[in-house]
Amino acid sequence: MSVKRIDHIAVVVDDIEGALNFWRDALGMDMTHMEEVAEQQSIVAFLPTGGSEIELVKPTTDSSGVAKYLAKRGPGMHHICVEVDDIHATLAQLKAKGIKLINETPTIGAGGKQIAFVHPGSTSGVLVELYQAA
Amino acid sequence: MSVKRIDHIAVVVDDIEGALNFWRDALGMDMTHMEEVAEQQSIVAFLPTGGSEIELVKPTTDSSGVAKYLAKRGPGMHHICVEVDDIHATLAQLKAKGIKLINETPTIGAGGKQIAFVHPGSTSGVLVELYQAA
Repeated sequence: MSVKRIDHIAVVVDDIEGALNFWRDALGMDMTHMEEVAEQQSIVAFLPTGGSEIELVKPTTDSSGVAKYLAKRGPGMHHICVEVDDIHATLAQLKAKGIKLINETPTIGAGGKQIAFVHPGSTSGVLVELYQAA
Repeated sequence: MSVKRIDHIAVVVDDIEGALNFWRDALGMDMTHMEEVAEQQSIVAFLPTGGSEIELVKPTTDSSGVAKYLAKRGPGMHHICVEVDDIHATLAQLKAKGIKLINETPTIGAGGKQIAFVHPGSTSGVLVELYQAA
């Protein structure tokens, strides 16, 4: 099992047009698309670069985890997602090493991809998402 | 001018061995090297994946920006560094668009690389480092 790459960095924002004013219009990154992701209760703008993406995430409700994070800490980096080649083996190894997991088994997302979150209490304060392509 | 890729994500830590227990030993990322970077008043561990790196940064003094960030907010993501092909053109465009810069002109780092920081007040809360290879 191994980590293949950083898939994305999620940035939580309260004003997506204001954020795009920097990332897209001033810094010059391409935005491939923006969509409402119902299961995440968010609007997400996708800005790929190299083999990774910056994802700007604006909550559309007050009750999601990302909305609560925004209310408490303000806009900024929310999590790092790394692609792994075998999410089940990775989760098993993390558990064996005493790492605290938010999801002990993967959630199946759009297109059959599998994701799971690792608790920041075990990762030097970083909310880490694991992702395995379908 | 354009953004080429995410060069690294810097994670500030108070315990580098504890952080490596997750990133290297449990998650299975390779650590290429760890070194004391005198100009940053930090010890830095480098963990490349794909075309990017996770950098674990432990302050060695109390007075650096990263040390103050750690004291105030605890361990976690500190900044994102993006590689650009023309840092002078990027800085000029950011300034023209009204983006607040920490460094209006690049600093020359090790090996002749040029870096500059953008203020998080203009970037939806993310401290962004710009980097141009020598």
